[in-house]
Amino acid sequence: MRISSFVEKGSRFYKDHPRSKLLLVAALSGGGVLAYSKSNSTSHVTGNSESPKKRIVVLGSGWGATSCLKNLDLAKYDVQVVSPRNFFAFTPLLPNVTCGTVEARSIVEPIRNIIGRSGAFWEAECFKIDAKNKKIHCRPIQKSESIEKEEIIMDFDYLVVAVGARANTFNTPGVEKNCHFLKEVEDAQKIRRSVIDCFEKASLPNLSEDEKKKHLHFVVVGGGPTGVEFAAELHDFIKEDLSKLYPKVKDFVNITLLEAGDKILPMFDQRIIDFAKEKFKRDGIDLKLGSMVVEVTDKAICTKERSSGEVSAVPYGMVVWSTGIGPRPLVSEFMQQIGQTNRRVLATDEWLRVQGSDCIYALGDCASINQRRIMEDIAVIFSKADKDKSGKLTVKQFQSVIADICERYPQVELYMKNKKLKGISDLLKDSEGKDNNIELDIEKFKLALSQVDSEAKTLPATAQVASQQGLYLADCFNRMQERHENPEGPLRIRGDGRHRFHPFRYKHLGQFAPLGGEQTAAQLPGDWVSIGHSSQWLWYSVYASKQVSWRTRTMVVSDWMRRFIFGRDSSRI
Amino acid sequence: MRISSFVEKGSRFYKDHPRSKLLLVAALSGGGVLAYSKSNSTSHVTGNSESPKKRIVVLGSGWGATSCLKNLDLAKYDVQVVSPRNFFAFTPLLPNVTCGTVEARSIVEPIRNIIGRSGAFWEAECFKIDAKNKKIHCRPIQKSESIEKEEIIMDFDYLVVAVGARANTFNTPGVEKNCHFLKEVEDAQKIRRSVIDCFEKASLPNLSEDEKKKHLHFVVVGGGPTGVEFAAELHDFIKEDLSKLYPKVKDFVNITLLEAGDKILPMFDQRIIDFAKEKFKRDGIDLKLGSMVVEVTDKAICTKERSSGEVSAVPYGMVVWSTGIGPRPLVSEFMQQIGQTNRRVLATDEWLRVQGSDCIYALGDCASINQRRIMEDIAVIFSKADKDKSGKLTVKQFQSVIADICERYPQVELYMKNKKLKGISDLLKDSEGKDNNIELDIEKFKLALSQVDSEAKTLPATAQVASQQGLYLADCFNRMQERHENPEGPLRIRGDGRHRFHPFRYKHLGQFAPLGGEQTAAQLPGDWVSIGHSSQWLWYSVYASKQVSWRTRTMVVSDWMRRFIFGRDSSRI
Repeated sequence: MRISSFVEKGSRFYKDHPRSKLLLVAALSGGGVLAYSKSNSTSHVTGNSESPKKRIVVLGSGWGATSCLKNLDLAKYDVQVVSPRNFFAFTPLLPNVTCGTVEARSIVEPIRNIIGRSGAFWEAECFKIDAKNKKIHCRPIQKSESIEKEEIIMDFDYLVVAVGARANTFNTPGVEKNCHFLKEVEDAQKIRRSVIDCFEKASLPNLSEDEKKKHLHFVVVGGGPTGVEFAAELHDFIKEDLSKLYPKVKDFVNITLLEAGDKILPMFDQRIIDFAKEKFKRDGIDLKLGSMVVEVTDKAICTKERSSGEVSAVPYGMVVWSTGIGPRPLVSEFMQQIGQTNRRVLATDEWLRVQGSDCIYALGDCASINQRRIMEDIAVIFSKADKDKSGKLTVKQFQSVIADICERYPQVELYMKNKKLKGISDLLKDSEGKDNNIELDIEKFKLALSQVDSEAKTLPATAQVASQQGLYLADCFNRMQERHENPEGPLRIRGDGRHRFHPFRYKHLGQFAPLGGEQTAAQLPGDWVSIGHSSQWLWYSVYASKQVSWRTRTMVVSDWMRRFIFGRDSSRI
Repeated sequence: MRISSFVEKGSRFYKDHPRSKLLLVAALSGGGVLAYSKSNSTSHVTGNSESPKKRIVVLGSGWGATSCLKNLDLAKYDVQVVSPRNFFAFTPLLPNVTCGTVEARSIVEPIRNIIGRSGAFWEAECFKIDAKNKKIHCRPIQKSESIEKEEIIMDFDYLVVAVGARANTFNTPGVEKNCHFLKEVEDAQKIRRSVIDCFEKASLPNLSEDEKKKHLHFVVVGGGPTGVEFAAELHDFIKEDLSKLYPKVKDFVNITLLEAGDKILPMFDQRIIDFAKEKFKRDGIDLKLGSMVVEVTDKAICTKERSSGEVSAVPYGMVVWSTGIGPRPLVSEFMQQIGQTNRRVLATDEWLRVQGSDCIYALGDCASINQRRIMEDIAVIFSKADKDKSGKLTVKQFQSVIADICERYPQVELYMKNKKLKGISDLLKDSEGKDNNIELDIEKFKLALSQVDSEAKTLPATAQVASQQGLYLADCFNRMQERHENPEGPLRIRGDGRHRFHPFRYKHLGQFAPLGGEQTAAQLPGDWVSIGHSSQWLWYSVYASKQVSWRTRTMVVSDWMRRFIFGRDSSRI
């Protein structure tokens, strides 16, 4: 058929060349030789001794891993990806998947499409990192009589840990069993079915009003962006679609948002918080601040008021738990192994290297950059700057190293900005009140910088951070050889020469808080705040443009259009 | 926002009036009052004593039920639908869902959208029909502490049984546990995940060639249209999409189609069968005829060759069982109750009434019309026609009742057509060889019609049949009062007057057998056969036009377009 052939030809180019880089990858895929030694249900995949290429193993297929893999020059390394999930998911749209505003399949892309056709992906779970011997231990996620006892051990030269985090229940009893989480695509799909279930249950003929109210009581725990967006989305779903299909029970619906702290959206501007609270009030979403969940039984959710200490139990139809993140077992075990016992997530240095290890990198939600404190290095900085070893530091001397200091310790710049200091002299004068010609001894220098470290920030656990880290790391790997010979980073304070690379620096591009009813709050850099329908359109354009492939972009946009025209589907599948 | 408002307004009309009939329904929904008497975990929903409207209870939400509900005049009856599935699924596209050519959600439509907003739907399973007391017993499909022991009993005036059928394993050991079926949307989704699972398992590093072959051995049992279409669809999925993503294992793939009979697609023309066999050969699909499955273990599928009796066991990655249908437990139990013990499905008369019951109707795959044999009534027919009671029947006398006879016993017309007889005289002459002026006695009359009943046909278990039956039944219900006073059907042979309605008559509109590679075989009425790309386009247009709503139509068409452009997605969700 003519038409069919035309469409086929037209589409063949895309299918054959989803990214032109793939051609290169396919041509190179023959280069990696895997050696197997099978014994005692364990296979060992050793490095490639014939090829000079070093092996990078990436654990995970989320934002960090994907961003790194998309930008990594696959010609330079033998790359192997290990993840229990064979796809990347555009997680910021997960709250939309819970109500069918977009479909689950529209926000996922096979990781094999991203890493190219060399097929260097294993659908397996890494359960142990052996840092000393540079090996990882994995097991296939699928049980099968031929592989269930198998353990796959693989060597690596560099390991990138980007396994993300899991929902944190804070050991609240009953949460694991009775609540929904909102971390994975499967979670969102389950929530969608569960919402429909609640409406179907409430529509059965043998129920009292109380029972109907119970089934249609939706509880969201956690007032962060995810919880708030889910509550808003659910409200829209019910108002715009379900109330028309279930007119007899729609008046029994109740949505409660519980937040243990004293405000929702704590990372946002107060104007946004106020607007969100006002909008929730208008929408009839019951917002309870200072309300801690102490237990979730199969019948009721028990809360304790922070202020009064009063404990109450309310029956529910569905609870979505969205309070924070905790480390995955692999990460906890690894932290134990390398002595990072008192931390919530893996600590890395500013180059994303796991502290205490030189070839293991970690990024995204499973890691956090441990910004080096300036006070730890204050003596060394003083002696580096005091080139004439006079024991006194002049502003001029300090000026010669300030660029490196600011790069190594970004809190210095932040401090100066926040204190509205105009330059180094201001910073040094600050403690003394004297003019430019001051000379400081070590004690005065310490005093001048003593407040600076309070500005060291921990990065939020967001897709934006993970994505920038992935890109940064790929760039470092791509230029590793080059920068080894010709380092570009700041002066090594404790040591000679320079660091190979500039440290990772996060560039905040702003964030959104969709509040339902086609209204979104946007907070852009420079505390530029916008709330309403216009931000919703900004949100649409940003989220469409950030999609990982043209396929997902097309699908997400057509899902939005479909929703505008036909509403959301409520079939229980 | 202007644009947003414009789109919203434009879409509001559709959302508010998906079918204009809905408005009428919504206005009437207040008419039905349900009375609850709750005791001992049983609720009893009685009829509406205040309203003169009779209650029709429809069991099921498939083709038969949906077609009936779409056409039923909801102003005339109190309609209640009970089904464990709150949506209608366009089942002919299920094989496409298995491989992601269309998405599951694109082929489903909430049943509440179809029956209107009165909400007369319960997501529950009927487990007992009490024909004598005109009651059904149901239980909710969802377990919940407040409703799990509940039993809902409901009265009916008319019951429409349209629960469909389940896959038939013919009691082959291991099938239930180890095989996939292809009856429900969930089945198709599971198959899709399972195909990806097989490829991921085969891509793990610790496998021998035999193990890879095992994981990538896809077996389809049953050479009917569903099995053949699934095999073809799977072949396309692997060839067009998966082989590019899994280049290292693609050569280990093998698809086997097992058919116990001696041909595939037995209901199709020989030209189609030959084409399909030839195409499968070219595509490398291993077609094994006369191969009966005797057992499916978790490791291998055991077959017995019909000709040689040879038994062999072949390891497999996935088996899809698509051999035929059997009755659901509800139907088996009901057949037992009304004495239809020796049958495969419920027997109804030509007006779709379950034999032995006057207010229970059955249609679709759970029922089969038991065409009345002309020989059973031959004596009565003779005496009805022999108006002068002479004991002799002339052609003229017979001609006066032939229209009614042909309507009541459609096999007469079929017989005449197949024997190429031109009229009644030919039929009667046939046995005697005499001319028009013949007179027949009862024995000769019997002899003349003795072969006619061999032409009585059983209708196939297809969506087309169920859909036409649903439409027919709705039409009967809509004109029940009218036709009671003014019957339109044929003469009652055993009784006086006329039947109220014309009996159901199936109109075969043709059928398709998609064979993969954008080629479809079509067999249209009059044995018009078309094979190839042009039929594929006919298939696209027919299936698009037959969609139950504009939403599903848009989604199915955009799924097809997406597949052309981007291919099928292989994320394991």
